[in-house]
Amino acid sequence: MKICLIGVTGHIKYVLNGVRKDKDSRIVGIAPGSPREKIEKIYHLLDDGIRVYSDYREMLDELQPDIVTVACHFNDHARITVEVLERGSHVFVEKPVALTFEELEQVKKAHASSGRYLAAMFGLRYKPWFMTAWKSVRSGMIGDIRMLNAQKSYKLGLRQEFFKHRNTYGGTIPWVGSHAIDWVYWFSGEKFRSVYATHSRKYNKDHGELEVTALCHFTLTNEIFASVSVDYLRPEQAPTHDDDRLRVVGTKGIIEVREHKVFLINGECSGIKELPLLPEEEIFFDFLKQAKGQGECLVSAEESFYITEACLRARQSADEGKVLFFQEESCRKA
Amino acid sequence: MKICLIGVTGHIKYVLNGVRKDKDSRIVGIAPGSPREKIEKIYHLLDDGIRVYSDYREMLDELQPDIVTVACHFNDHARITVEVLERGSHVFVEKPVALTFEELEQVKKAHASSGRYLAAMFGLRYKPWFMTAWKSVRSGMIGDIRMLNAQKSYKLGLRQEFFKHRNTYGGTIPWVGSHAIDWVYWFSGEKFRSVYATHSRKYNKDHGELEVTALCHFTLTNEIFASVSVDYLRPEQAPTHDDDRLRVVGTKGIIEVREHKVFLINGECSGIKELPLLPEEEIFFDFLKQAKGQGECLVSAEESFYITEACLRARQSADEGKVLFFQEESCRKA
Repeated sequence: MKICLIGVTGHIKYVLNGVRKDKDSRIVGIAPGSPREKIEKIYHLLDDGIRVYSDYREMLDELQPDIVTVACHFNDHARITVEVLERGSHVFVEKPVALTFEELEQVKKAHASSGRYLAAMFGLRYKPWFMTAWKSVRSGMIGDIRMLNAQKSYKLGLRQEFFKHRNTYGGTIPWVGSHAIDWVYWFSGEKFRSVYATHSRKYNKDHGELEVTALCHFTLTNEIFASVSVDYLRPEQAPTHDDDRLRVVGTKGIIEVREHKVFLINGECSGIKELPLLPEEEIFFDFLKQAKGQGECLVSAEESFYITEACLRARQSADEGKVLFFQEESCRKA
Repeated sequence: MKICLIGVTGHIKYVLNGVRKDKDSRIVGIAPGSPREKIEKIYHLLDDGIRVYSDYREMLDELQPDIVTVACHFNDHARITVEVLERGSHVFVEKPVALTFEELEQVKKAHASSGRYLAAMFGLRYKPWFMTAWKSVRSGMIGDIRMLNAQKSYKLGLRQEFFKHRNTYGGTIPWVGSHAIDWVYWFSGEKFRSVYATHSRKYNKDHGELEVTALCHFTLTNEIFASVSVDYLRPEQAPTHDDDRLRVVGTKGIIEVREHKVFLINGECSGIKELPLLPEEEIFFDFLKQAKGQGECLVSAEESFYITEACLRARQSADEGKVLFFQEESCRKA
């Protein structure tokens, strides 16, 4: 598998970690995806002999890669993804896949006619704590899911300029919230019915239009409710950058992901039980396997699009201050 | 202080614990508040010589108590509270104070013209973990509050018949949720601007109209958001009946109440710090002091009414499926 990198923003480490595990794959070229993207910063992580381009189109045409990763400024994800699909490569793209519904439609269309694989970088699914919790839920340990409470809390630090503008950043719900919205969907296996959300830019420490807090309230099929709480207010002194949490309430038990651990209460145990964690996996390694015809990536293109839609709908709800409903048309892979 | 008890449902223990601490007060009479209420069940906790009535009006007229506690079936709270206030006694009443906006108005009016004290049983404020967290927040440890995530999770068990009907129970948001809605208000010191809520009766194990899950999304003044997650799905094997939690996100730190402990992250400490707990206090002892003219109860009548209004507005939102707004008229004690 020949791999080309477009951009080095966001979770480019998923790609480097995945390639390292697969002897059949190698990175052959790299180019920036967005203006002023500093691709030099990852040169030291790449093998010698990788070709460097200033124009990613030239790179695609010359190197004809099997797989292209897209991880640049967020407003360039959709356009570049379409270009890559039209040139016939599989795409591993940073989330959110698109910043507008129009762009999302363009990506869906290009994907449908390309016959290629696409996955968005929902790499947190592969973290041992989330995978362990998810498999426990799937095996019936908490019965039928009735409610989910998800949390993303980040340190703000000092963000790049493009985070400060809605048109390049897209908003905190699509950027930070998307992971939590993905958990809600992935764990529940249900479809989104409606969303009400709010977000605020107050106290964003000169980060322009960046929202520092956001709260989403989803209703899924079967009267399942989900809260998604997002903030950039994690103190700089906190032991980790992020404080990811998920609480899943079922008819037979409750499971929680907190501090990289998994806690379960159900009828089988008395008290709260900490579950042993499954080993860490790599999303890009999973995607590589799919590209080689050796299985199916846990994150499908349909899911990537559906989560993007949910994020954009939630952001719209927060912008407009009203409850919004989802179309009946469902994600194909439920 | 002569105290009469009307009803023995709900948190009647607050009253017994409070009286025990105050040598100037004694319970002089007891009567049921609602049909089929079994007052005998607390006889063994009362002193000898307390008079027992079948009709609480007769008791009030004969014993002329200084303070009356009202804790019966929830649909009787408002009506009896009005009667007590009109007879000139202070009232310590189980929350929610009323199950409808009309009843709430009647109570407010009776209270205003009575000149008597009233407090609803928001006794969880006095728990060491909540009091410790609240005082820490008030002292500026987390800066300005931007978001709150509150949780109430109860075991369902086998509830009395009156829980199964909306007209006697009132709903899970006013009954269980009211505590968490109170924390949101009490910690933030802000006013409610809007609420969106959902609730579901699915999987309520033959509990009629009782809602097993509920989720509320409040927006307070100053663009502060709050989630309130409520469920009756705590497994029967869990170590405690309830799993009360509160996470308060501020501009300088985050404080959490969980498992009867308080955790703080802010600029003063590296890592997560568990705070030493303040000693337990009793809400009814506080109310007794107020009645004796020795201070002000932490729970005011105005707050009791305001939280009731917020609960009823949230329930209405869940019933009607839309965002509802609060009147500008504010709680007097902010």
